[in-house]
Amino acid sequence: MQIKDILQLSPESQSVVVKGWVRTKRGQANIVFINLNDGSTIKNIQAVVEDGKIEEEILKKISTGACIAVSGTLVASAGSGQAVEVLAQTIEIYGTADETFPMQPKKHSLEFLREKAHLRFRTNTFGAIFRIRHALAFAVHKFYNDNGFFYLHTPIITASDAEGAGEMFRVSSFEPNAAPKNEDGSVDFSQDFFGRETSLTVSGQLEGELGAMALSKIYTFGPTFRAENSNTTRHLAEFWMIEPEVAFYELEDNMNLAESFVKYVIQYAIDNCKDDLEFLQTRLLEEEKSKPQNERSEQTLLEKLNFVVENSFERLTYTEAIDILLKSKPAQKKQFQYEVGWGIDLQSEHERYLVEKHFKKPVILTNYPKDIKAFYMKQDADGKTVRAMDVLFPGIGEIIGGSQREDNYEKLMTRINEVGIDPDNLWWYLDTRKFGSAPHSGFGLGFERLVLFVTGMGNIRDVIPFPRTPKNAEF
Amino acid sequence: MQIKDILQLSPESQSVVVKGWVRTKRGQANIVFINLNDGSTIKNIQAVVEDGKIEEEILKKISTGACIAVSGTLVASAGSGQAVEVLAQTIEIYGTADETFPMQPKKHSLEFLREKAHLRFRTNTFGAIFRIRHALAFAVHKFYNDNGFFYLHTPIITASDAEGAGEMFRVSSFEPNAAPKNEDGSVDFSQDFFGRETSLTVSGQLEGELGAMALSKIYTFGPTFRAENSNTTRHLAEFWMIEPEVAFYELEDNMNLAESFVKYVIQYAIDNCKDDLEFLQTRLLEEEKSKPQNERSEQTLLEKLNFVVENSFERLTYTEAIDILLKSKPAQKKQFQYEVGWGIDLQSEHERYLVEKHFKKPVILTNYPKDIKAFYMKQDADGKTVRAMDVLFPGIGEIIGGSQREDNYEKLMTRINEVGIDPDNLWWYLDTRKFGSAPHSGFGLGFERLVLFVTGMGNIRDVIPFPRTPKNAEF
Repeated sequence: MQIKDILQLSPESQSVVVKGWVRTKRGQANIVFINLNDGSTIKNIQAVVEDGKIEEEILKKISTGACIAVSGTLVASAGSGQAVEVLAQTIEIYGTADETFPMQPKKHSLEFLREKAHLRFRTNTFGAIFRIRHALAFAVHKFYNDNGFFYLHTPIITASDAEGAGEMFRVSSFEPNAAPKNEDGSVDFSQDFFGRETSLTVSGQLEGELGAMALSKIYTFGPTFRAENSNTTRHLAEFWMIEPEVAFYELEDNMNLAESFVKYVIQYAIDNCKDDLEFLQTRLLEEEKSKPQNERSEQTLLEKLNFVVENSFERLTYTEAIDILLKSKPAQKKQFQYEVGWGIDLQSEHERYLVEKHFKKPVILTNYPKDIKAFYMKQDADGKTVRAMDVLFPGIGEIIGGSQREDNYEKLMTRINEVGIDPDNLWWYLDTRKFGSAPHSGFGLGFERLVLFVTGMGNIRDVIPFPRTPKNAEF
Repeated sequence: MQIKDILQLSPESQSVVVKGWVRTKRGQANIVFINLNDGSTIKNIQAVVEDGKIEEEILKKISTGACIAVSGTLVASAGSGQAVEVLAQTIEIYGTADETFPMQPKKHSLEFLREKAHLRFRTNTFGAIFRIRHALAFAVHKFYNDNGFFYLHTPIITASDAEGAGEMFRVSSFEPNAAPKNEDGSVDFSQDFFGRETSLTVSGQLEGELGAMALSKIYTFGPTFRAENSNTTRHLAEFWMIEPEVAFYELEDNMNLAESFVKYVIQYAIDNCKDDLEFLQTRLLEEEKSKPQNERSEQTLLEKLNFVVENSFERLTYTEAIDILLKSKPAQKKQFQYEVGWGIDLQSEHERYLVEKHFKKPVILTNYPKDIKAFYMKQDADGKTVRAMDVLFPGIGEIIGGSQREDNYEKLMTRINEVGIDPDNLWWYLDTRKFGSAPHSGFGLGFERLVLFVTGMGNIRDVIPFPRTPKNAEF
């Protein structure tokens, strides 16, 4: 039985065996208290060792980080903060931990813990984060399953580039600097494992569309990659993305799906991760105490999550957003670093103004200029904009990007030629517009950005177990 | 509303809109029947067009593969095989499909459909397979979530080689044949994206163990890779693997987990994919008609699945299995291609004999010779065997491989040195044996092999949307 379940038992003096890692050991004259955690919950269980009950030899070996099994009696706790505790009868030591164990019970910086990512699971903060991450992932699958979507595993190794941009990692079985060559000196990829040049996918969308054009409602949830040298708190070279794609959905349906989906998974975390969210909320309040008043959050973590779930996202077009920005104080006072004007790619400062200052809630922007969006987005009748939608979150920025897709073969071909993609590489994608094309829409949600929002953490490296970033692939 | 739901309605003459792809159109003198499918179910809905109701111009454009929306009245069906049908009032054509549409209503070979993997979702067979694949994937998450496991995303790009063997794909952002060099002419990986040599993971186990040594119960479900030139019906270069890892579990607990897990997900498919499984069962019976009697299955697909769920897996040691094989008819008659003897790596023919001839049920073999198993498996007291377990399935062979892990630091180091792994590359793995080590166990299940078993398909390329195999990375 796990500690989570033992803590729910009533203390009818039954025998229990508690297994876990020692968080702290405190000794008094005739009594020793050991706090044990097994990761099933943020709560520890206290084992009480009365004088002489356990051999001194064994007790000496028990210190922070050790793994032990305590057999004893579950009794009502005399101390505050816990209903039950274990009166130890025997203790088995599975593994000791000497004083070099890095997770000693004191404050560690997040940077230090990142270097010890193999052990940071054993802290309260990271235990909470990764339990919440699990709950969110499960909620994703449950939401789509309950709504009739099919989970589609799109390929990780790909010969196509979904976005027509985005730097990709090469995948090969050639020895570096020893790839076979063609007569003209170029690399002979026909001799590589797949017989062609291959990379790691940047998105499962194009293949997802193939599924949607037959199964109607699909979603992906898998790793995606960017070989971009972005050393920020918002970017990873390897991250998990969720991409639903739905036949017969137009932009409006797509917005409704995105909003109900995000609200569902956040509500699921609120309902299922109470202890962990409360811990992170307290942690955040502590952290903010060192900040000046005007930089502190207006809402606590749980207030922020409940606010998102309870309020409608603001929906407006890109053109309307530009108007608001042009009339804004920072624009008039020339406080934006990047000048505002129709056609620009909105910068973080603009998105933050809209979300955090103007509307003070999540915002869905639609109908962006076609020149700043991907080739596959459905063109509006005005010839200038496309049926794109970005969902912007406070503190996070873009959490979802999506669109209705261009389903007209000729319009799609024109756009593919305009942006300079070789249509031969996308023959299979074009086929879906040739044979039984249909309106369809979808979006991508960066899973780590969602976890970042829900946990209130500040660095994306802290919400994925083993982050991959420039110059870092440890563990 | 989707066709799956419309088919459940009672025909009270309500108005419905049915959207889907045309499977067939049959015309008679005064009436046209259109069969529509939207992938939500294997069942089609029939649209009936009475004489003169729909313009001839529109009707002419409707053929197999076209995507349409039929608005009309839901009525009780006069024909057999369906309870309800739609009396068409208007039809909107989303996309036509001319006679070059490859999925015409006739028999296609699986090889042909593999080349058209972007459209094969629109066939009954592949619709059924990918709906079942979804149900199995959801059942995996549901099983582990309901049992207190946390889903852990282990890294895809890795600098370590979990098995100490297995050919890996290289991941790099270097141009091929243009990687920077050190003074001695070797490749200067410090200038590569991650500042070191990196590959695609062959297993998330080692990182999974790090999670289990803090959160107690974790599982992974992600893509894994093998750069092996295996052109068989059982191997993929990219496949999805599920790897639970549990602190405080010994080999016996690990076997219990594996057996209950596999039974749960198969039962889930039986309960949730009735129509699709019945279709595949009929398909299989048809396929087997062309085979000689003695090559046909003894059980239908559903009988086979129910048999696995209802019977205990046979558990025995490798040593006991070798004894059985030595005494077997094929061994005595020298019919095995590979000779049997203690210490050999069991070949497919041996595993099949045990599973299909001797026990006629799934088998769990344990305590293999340490020399044929990975370095991380817990050594038995005899010094010869390790606490490994393989689950063997009829028709599939090994579906699960796992073990109790070596939790003793000294024994693990000795083994690492014996097999020639550089311990510096695994410092983080070794740390978990230094600080609070604990008994723990886990296993890996190849997801596609499970889907293969449940769908009764014969080639692993047919149970993943876009297979990656030697010389093939299309789509």
